Amino acid sequence: MEKTRVRKVEKKVKNDRLEVRTDLAMEERESFPGDGGEIPGVILTEKERNGGIRLTEVEILDERGAGRMRKPVGAYLTLEAPGLADGQSEQQEAAKELAGLIRKLLARHQIGEKERPRILVVGLGNPDATPDALGPMVMERLPMTRHLVLTCGAEYDEEGEYPMISGISPGVMAKTGMETAEIIRGIVKETRPDAVLAVDALAARSVRRLGVTIQLSDTGIHPGSGVGNHRNSLTEESLGIPVLALGAPTVVGAAAIVYDTVDALEEVLKASSSLKGYGDTIGAMGPEEQYELIREILEPRLGPMYVTPHDIDARVEILSGVISRAIQEALFSWGKPEVLK
Amino acid sequence: MEKTRVRKVEKKVKNDRLEVRTDLAMEERESFPGDGGEIPGVILTEKERNGGIRLTEVEILDERGAGRMRKPVGAYLTLEAPGLADGQSEQQEAAKELAGLIRKLLARHQIGEKERPRILVVGLGNPDATPDALGPMVMERLPMTRHLVLTCGAEYDEEGEYPMISGISPGVMAKTGMETAEIIRGIVKETRPDAVLAVDALAARSVRRLGVTIQLSDTGIHPGSGVGNHRNSLTEESLGIPVLALGAPTVVGAAAIVYDTVDALEEVLKASSSLKGYGDTIGAMGPEEQYELIREILEPRLGPMYVTPHDIDARVEILSGVISRAIQEALFSWGKPEVLK
Amino acid sequence: MEKTRVRKVEKKVKNDRLEVRTDLAMEERESFPGDGGEIPGVILTEKERNGGIRLTEVEILDERGAGRMRKPVGAYLTLEAPGLADGQSEQQEAAKELAGLIRKLLARHQIGEKERPRILVVGLGNPDATPDALGPMVMERLPMTRHLVLTCGAEYDEEGEYPMISGISPGVMAKTGMETAEIIRGIVKETRPDAVLAVDALAARSVRRLGVTIQLSDTGIHPGSGVGNHRNSLTEESLGIPVLALGAPTVVGAAAIVYDTVDALEEVLKASSSLKGYGDTIGAMGPEEQYELIREILEPRLGPMYVTPHDIDARVEILSGVISRAIQEALFSWGKPEVLK
Amino acid sequence: MEKTRVRKVEKKVKNDRLEVRTDLAMEERESFPGDGGEIPGVILTEKERNGGIRLTEVEILDERGAGRMRKPVGAYLTLEAPGLADGQSEQQEAAKELAGLIRKLLARHQIGEKERPRILVVGLGNPDATPDALGPMVMERLPMTRHLVLTCGAEYDEEGEYPMISGISPGVMAKTGMETAEIIRGIVKETRPDAVLAVDALAARSVRRLGVTIQLSDTGIHPGSGVGNHRNSLTEESLGIPVLALGAPTVVGAAAIVYDTVDALEEVLKASSSLKGYGDTIGAMGPEEQYELIREILEPRLGPMYVTPHDIDARVEILSGVISRAIQEALFSWGKPEVLK
Repeated sequence: MEKTRVRKVEKKVKNDRLEVRTDLAMEERESFPGDGGEIPGVILTEKERNGGIRLTEVEILDERGAGRMRKPVGAYLTLEAPGLADGQSEQQEAAKELAGLIRKLLARHQIGEKERPRILVVGLGNPDATPDALGPMVMERLPMTRHLVLTCGAEYDEEGEYPMISGISPGVMAKTGMETAEIIRGIVKETRPDAVLAVDALAARSVRRLGVTIQLSDTGIHPGSGVGNHRNSLTEESLGIPVLALGAPTVVGAAAIVYDTVDALEEVLKASSSLKGYGDTIGAMGPEEQYELIREILEPRLGPMYVTPHDIDARVEILSGVISRAIQEALFSWGKPEVLK
Repeated sequence: MEKTRVRKVEKKVKNDRLEVRTDLAMEERESFPGDGGEIPGVILTEKERNGGIRLTEVEILDERGAGRMRKPVGAYLTLEAPGLADGQSEQQEAAKELAGLIRKLLARHQIGEKERPRILVVGLGNPDATPDALGPMVMERLPMTRHLVLTCGAEYDEEGEYPMISGISPGVMAKTGMETAEIIRGIVKETRPDAVLAVDALAARSVRRLGVTIQLSDTGIHPGSGVGNHRNSLTEESLGIPVLALGAPTVVGAAAIVYDTVDALEEVLKASSSLKGYGDTIGAMGPEEQYELIREILEPRLGPMYVTPHDIDARVEILSGVISRAIQEALFSWGKPEVLK
Repeated sequence: MEKTRVRKVEKKVKNDRLEVRTDLAMEERESFPGDGGEIPGVILTEKERNGGIRLTEVEILDERGAGRMRKPVGAYLTLEAPGLADGQSEQQEAAKELAGLIRKLLARHQIGEKERPRILVVGLGNPDATPDALGPMVMERLPMTRHLVLTCGAEYDEEGEYPMISGISPGVMAKTGMETAEIIRGIVKETRPDAVLAVDALAARSVRRLGVTIQLSDTGIHPGSGVGNHRNSLTEESLGIPVLALGAPTVVGAAAIVYDTVDALEEVLKASSSLKGYGDTIGAMGPEEQYELIREILEPRLGPMYVTPHDIDARVEILSGVISRAIQEALFSWGKPEVLK
Repeated sequence: MEKTRVRKVEKKVKNDRLEVRTDLAMEERESFPGDGGEIPGVILTEKERNGGIRLTEVEILDERGAGRMRKPVGAYLTLEAPGLADGQSEQQEAAKELAGLIRKLLARHQIGEKERPRILVVGLGNPDATPDALGPMVMERLPMTRHLVLTCGAEYDEEGEYPMISGISPGVMAKTGMETAEIIRGIVKETRPDAVLAVDALAARSVRRLGVTIQLSDTGIHPGSGVGNHRNSLTEESLGIPVLALGAPTVVGAAAIVYDTVDALEEVLKASSSLKGYGDTIGAMGPEEQYELIREILEPRLGPMYVTPHDIDARVEILSGVISRAIQEALFSWGKPEVLK
């Protein structure tokens, strides 16, 4: 490759630092060479749970870690449940584990500590495009309670311990003419919740994550993340209250697929004595460089394209069921300390 | 009827003054005995237009008129198009006439006079209950432009004369946990439109209105109106900008149906010599009294019930098409004075 | 009333014998004066079950009974669960009871006796009109298994005891241009199930039934029943296999509402000494006569109108959940004799 | 690459002859090296039309051509309209051209020659997965007329010249438990149309086709085509009547994307002197070989994955509008010979 081209690519990579190639912090973490090693400013914890569920916690402690991980400082809790499509008991187990993660992150922000939690759930994404419909589908399944607490009081909530859940699926900018952040900012100011819980479809780096992974973070939603482009941030900084982001990958960027295949192709070709030349040459580029080259070739011809499995409707339905059950379980356990143990 | 009962009914009627039995001002107007006569503080104008379309303008001038009409001071423009289900040319004609009414009301509030109009369209109602889905269905068909004007500028809008349309279907309180008014108030404060145009399904007094009538007013949306109960007002007073309400009746209250039938029954029985007693007795009650008696009997046993035609899905689809076309036509004619003539 | 009018009404009533005013056999049964008494050719059994659920079995034994009941010979099993909207445990209880009724009727027709049951579930009705969407909504929730049994065999179904469930929501005639019966007849001939289980929204006589009642019969679907007009019969006679009909009332005919109110009005007026005349005169007509008179007055002015509660979307969602769970439970218990006890 | 691997790939290619890599005959045609040359048994005609629309007709004359093209004998008419997303006038122009193609293919099969055409439109695909929802979306927009002609006769159709359109969206096998072919075969036998017009989402080879291309053929629908896997054929052979297939590509197989990028990568690397080795080695494989290698690497890790643009909902909506308008225009012009000129 000519020098000028390499330079251009390098420059691009630097400018794109904040452009997220995967929305999953655990994938970003994995991408580091020699992934057993430690990354300064990043703590990684992994746990195996019942039913083959695996919990990964990536904690980005400071700006150093944020720079390396290309994600803001904060906690990223990930649940992987390979058997999610197998049946109801696997889904219930996953919902229970996810509820635990939600409670953990709420507790970290002192939400629901003294008073019942008041949460605005935001279903981000486009209900008309299946891979992007996760947020709106969760909203459809989630029972709202804020109006009942406010208008019925003790008649609805005898013990005074139900959470105040409100929610909205604002729709994407192409269908509202407004930034999602404008809408949510307005609603937050009027209804004053303790926290926003934003549910969104994510983009993963690897197709293995699709339909089996759920990530919860306390760092909000950032421009350019997610499947669609839900512009402008939803963060504690912009809204004045903590913003938990709960998402599940439903697509992989087309560039990532190509990169993975080229990578595998390289392995095959290296092993093949007669085609040795390939391994030597393309292998001489670093992975970053290879990826950017592929993206450079791909994007002008495609625009932003996504790869999605053909049974994405079934996968999104299962995910939305698990997530809505987990949110209910987490929020309705307030005032019942035994649940929290 | 015993005196005490009559008293109770009378008292109820007085307390319910603001409870709207029909959302159509023209029906309220018609309900006055001897409807050729004038009502102080109310001006009525009627026009026949092409294609059998009839425009009625009820202008409530002052508090006297408002009290008699049980509707706020303002303009109520109604379009009746009996042939709306007949075909596309009838629907185009109706859309054209409705666009004229929208322009008229916008002009009255100086919107789009000097600068392009910036309108927030609100699709009120419940998308999952067909008779209440008119607002959300209009929103689905209406192209948004605000984000294009703001982000693409002249690339999108060469002459700088396109309107800035934004919009949202906030969903009903049972599914958001929030008053619609809270949501809209927040969005208005953040996005600063010139006016809100709220689209909603209405309740009529007579089934003859269903699917063929569209009403436009500049008095906003009031609690308890409409099919569902979209709580709290959306008015110029509460939002700080004019609120146009554009709606079409899709249901009739069950009490109204019963009342009409009893009324007709009375006529039949009066004509029948052998059953003369009935006409004398039930006829001795005033219409108000009869209606309230029926409602008293009906409501505790039914809860709020609505009467709706069995082809309501087709009617709502036609109405949403006409309304969305009319809104586009009205707003996109800004800066083209020849259209306004 | 003049003689000629009465005659006309009487004649109409006779011609309309087969026109169903309520789709619920239990309501038809109740409509007989002195309803403790026995009707020749009809057996009535009632049971109280857990959770306030009430099961009513109306068995029409012969043509005599069919004539009196205006319904075909066969079994009509009804479940009433007043607490259906209260919560998940009530809904699970109802699903369990309904599963028992389904198994009972399948057993009566020897379906699943020696071999696994092969059932074609048909979701009748219009998915775009909420009160008529029950059938399609049940279909959306019900897992299909026929293709899995046929293509995956033991890999899917180790013990060889899963049912073969297939299903379709054919849509209404206005949207297919075909009679539902044509579509189903064709599919039955090609796929050869043991029985059809047709799920449909029904019309009740009383609003008290809406959202809390489910009826199962083995007499198929007849023209003019249901909310929409799903033309032509789906019966054992027309399809060659038993047709179970599973439905829940979501609407009441407008005429029925008026009749009930006039009835109540009569009571009130009778009690009121000053209006005694009314009770004497209108009360002098038989209920049949009164109802027909009301219908005669109502229909030409309204077309077929339905009364439906304003929270019909929530009610239909609950009903579709209970019905789909019950069907699964009933069919998947095949080969597990202990479940059948 | 070792010899054995190459052999395996070669063998696979031969076995997969009938597996369609693109559903577009025009793309298959383009894939031949030196595509100016003629293919025996295949005739290619191209026309430029108004509005930048390009019509391509690929006629496969005999088995020789079918073998080369890996598509059945028949006509494949393709419309490309690059400006389809630009506005309504472009869409109307495209609908007009497409209507002409439909009339042409109907005429070739003598449908509507002496009597009005009786067409069963089948909306294939999964309404819940946006890229696969094209067929059901066309069905939603298309007015049905068969029942009106049959039941209303001259009242509906004064001149006796309206077409008899019926239609159904049968849903995918995962949601019906039945092969689509079983359902359609049954309906065809019962309702006896002259032809089936099957509308389906297609897979293209190049992303440039997505959202701008529509293909019409008279060779029916074949297993494994389309986005989902709508099993079993819908062909004249299996149904006894002509089967027109009308489709538009909404996805590209992931393998195709990778292949294209590797191809472009090769060009870049060839030009770069320092990485020359790559061009020599991977370039030494034939394109067939390269594609199969990529598919071999990709599929076991991904399952069948699709690439789709992120605004797929908007594109499918536009396509469904154009297709439904074209079908109406083509069928309603029967009996109006001037239209056909």
